[in-house]
Amino acid sequence: MLPQWMIEKKRDGLHLTTEEIQTFIRGYTDGTIPDYQMAALAMAIYFRGMSPRETADLTIAMMESGTVIDPTRIPGRKVDKHSTGGIGDKISIPLAPLVAACGAKVPMISGRGLGITGGTLDKLESIHGYRVNLSEKEFFNTLQQCGCSLIGQTDEICPADKKLYALRDVTATVPSIPLIVASIMSKKMAEGIDALVLDVKCGAGAFMKTRKDAQTLAKALVATGESLGRKTTALLTNMDQPLGRTVGNSLEIQESIDILNNNGPDDVRQLTLELAAHMLLSVNLFPDLDAARQRALTALADGSALHLFENMVQCHGGDLSQGLPRAQHTVPLEARQTGQVQEVNADLIGRAVLLLGAGRTQTTDTIDPAVGLSDLVKTGEEVRSGDPLCILHFNDHNKAKEALELLTDAFKITNKPVTPPELIYEIIRH
Amino acid sequence: MLPQWMIEKKRDGLHLTTEEIQTFIRGYTDGTIPDYQMAALAMAIYFRGMSPRETADLTIAMMESGTVIDPTRIPGRKVDKHSTGGIGDKISIPLAPLVAACGAKVPMISGRGLGITGGTLDKLESIHGYRVNLSEKEFFNTLQQCGCSLIGQTDEICPADKKLYALRDVTATVPSIPLIVASIMSKKMAEGIDALVLDVKCGAGAFMKTRKDAQTLAKALVATGESLGRKTTALLTNMDQPLGRTVGNSLEIQESIDILNNNGPDDVRQLTLELAAHMLLSVNLFPDLDAARQRALTALADGSALHLFENMVQCHGGDLSQGLPRAQHTVPLEARQTGQVQEVNADLIGRAVLLLGAGRTQTTDTIDPAVGLSDLVKTGEEVRSGDPLCILHFNDHNKAKEALELLTDAFKITNKPVTPPELIYEIIRH
Repeated sequence: MLPQWMIEKKRDGLHLTTEEIQTFIRGYTDGTIPDYQMAALAMAIYFRGMSPRETADLTIAMMESGTVIDPTRIPGRKVDKHSTGGIGDKISIPLAPLVAACGAKVPMISGRGLGITGGTLDKLESIHGYRVNLSEKEFFNTLQQCGCSLIGQTDEICPADKKLYALRDVTATVPSIPLIVASIMSKKMAEGIDALVLDVKCGAGAFMKTRKDAQTLAKALVATGESLGRKTTALLTNMDQPLGRTVGNSLEIQESIDILNNNGPDDVRQLTLELAAHMLLSVNLFPDLDAARQRALTALADGSALHLFENMVQCHGGDLSQGLPRAQHTVPLEARQTGQVQEVNADLIGRAVLLLGAGRTQTTDTIDPAVGLSDLVKTGEEVRSGDPLCILHFNDHNKAKEALELLTDAFKITNKPVTPPELIYEIIRH
Repeated sequence: MLPQWMIEKKRDGLHLTTEEIQTFIRGYTDGTIPDYQMAALAMAIYFRGMSPRETADLTIAMMESGTVIDPTRIPGRKVDKHSTGGIGDKISIPLAPLVAACGAKVPMISGRGLGITGGTLDKLESIHGYRVNLSEKEFFNTLQQCGCSLIGQTDEICPADKKLYALRDVTATVPSIPLIVASIMSKKMAEGIDALVLDVKCGAGAFMKTRKDAQTLAKALVATGESLGRKTTALLTNMDQPLGRTVGNSLEIQESIDILNNNGPDDVRQLTLELAAHMLLSVNLFPDLDAARQRALTALADGSALHLFENMVQCHGGDLSQGLPRAQHTVPLEARQTGQVQEVNADLIGRAVLLLGAGRTQTTDTIDPAVGLSDLVKTGEEVRSGDPLCILHFNDHNKAKEALELLTDAFKITNKPVTPPELIYEIIRH
């Protein structure tokens, strides 16, 4: 069957067969099907969607385009978490060693930041010497020794996704549920995990702005994971305001360490614990969510999670004793009125931090690990005129000036009482 | 503005500006916008359509991607005809010299056949020595001397259409009204004509199967032509059965010469005269359709149209005195029952003739000019069992066998009376 006939089928709203999807993705991976046919198919998928069966087939085809980690090489129960991305989302960093400390294995392949969304790999690289690219042997050793390893995607894993992701970016085919699902799930399934917990963000600083859109994505992710035989759970969580009190690479590493020190901001602590409990439950290490949650609380309190984190950093060549990069200058942004914080706009915060140099507008940009924001107020908190709403950490006065302009619109103070927003909206299971 | 932003606009159902369309087509022509972005845009256009203004802008942008013939280089009133393609459609060949004999200039750029639809150029090339590619000087000389010239598309005319046409073919984006309109009209507008008459085919052997679809296309073509300042008229015509009694390259040339000899099948004669009358009227050479029709009848009766045709063939290097290619074998397909012809399926006839070797399934295929069908019965005619329904002309017995199998399904005979179908359904004007 010619590729254009498959495009035509999808264009006309018909379902592609398993074999057709496999043929197309195989051809695209080896280059016999050119970018322009993939682009046309992606746009047809944007308009026509895909059935759950087609989405699962696409996920498998993309996973099988590269290396799939043999799960028998990682003894124990293997579980991972994926977040759809938000501002100040450093959860993976305390979460992986916490879950490992409770007895599961976490082989976590993370990404880099692009646009306003920061990347776990970029944050980790603010630790002196931390290598995100380990050899296969180093990766398995780290998992065995520390129970977790946070690495970057290799060229061998899901090459079809790499190509397609770059193509979607330049053909306006990013916001398509089946394409998003297959991209996320193919990479996660290639990790050889038994279960997956998804953190689907929703709000001003997230890809999905509305609860309904986030639900649709979460359900599609869960359905695909389950149809591939992995226990899959999704948490729908708030991303109207940033997570925690820091945004910026090294600042977020410090906050992650605070969490592992049984400290840190409430929201980061709560979400880390809830995700950990769901991960542990999904690989049946505990009889119920509460038991899992209690175990995780202990691992934070007794320092075992922190210990595993320090070990993992060492296995990755990192050296925490050198301290984290710090910006040359800091300046507070002061509240202009007294009242309750009504809004901390995650989108504007993300843009401001991007302006400071903490992120990339293009994949080739270099980032400044030290810059960002700390001491962010949270929605519902009280401030007095002159109090800091946050502290800017910066190395360039011009960039700081631009960022400050954006930030003045990011905070809203009101005289009326404000109820702090829910952090976790709902849990979506099969 | 990045190309992906324009794709996104169209994807979301917004209108592209004139400048955006120009930028995109310019970039696509010079290669700075790659095929995959054009493919994504084409698919978005397939789903979202284009406004009349956008379609006109796309037509202009594609026309301006190459050479546009300077109309002042062709003295007189210039008019052309375009058919959307059908089986046995040789009308251009008698029509161009006929209209020229009545006083207009016909600078006709024609195409080759692909699939079941034959091409005017292929038919002309069955004349010994006929060159479809003239130099610019030869083209203008032929026009001056004979009033018409039937040539092929050059690399200089509408290069954007050439690229896009090939791309649409492999990305399932052919059946999109604005893309079809821009492709047809950009090439015709580049001819420097004052007016255009369109023959929009409708039925089993046409691209548009239903009258409604053909109307939609005809209206879009007329609207675009008029908005570009050219008097544009469309005739909606029947393509359930083939035109005339021959299908195949040299056989159709012979039928065209019959028409110019004031002879030939009724339907070809009628459509040629009607199209000629509309062409002559649209450049205001006659006060009304009837006067134009009368003049055309005279040009067939007095041999002046035939004379111009013979001159034109000579100017193109052709030599009619050598005779036309003839197939080695002929065999009649006999009627199995007595009755009235209920159906002569143009699609199946087209496929059978393709099987005989008269057409191409790929652009690189070579064709056999001699093979095809003659003496085709027409819907509504009476046949007796054993009468020939048509005569096959062939050079390969295996191909003839395959073609005969298809042909047995192409004819339907009934005992009930059959009303011959209308040839011209309606005229669509601005």
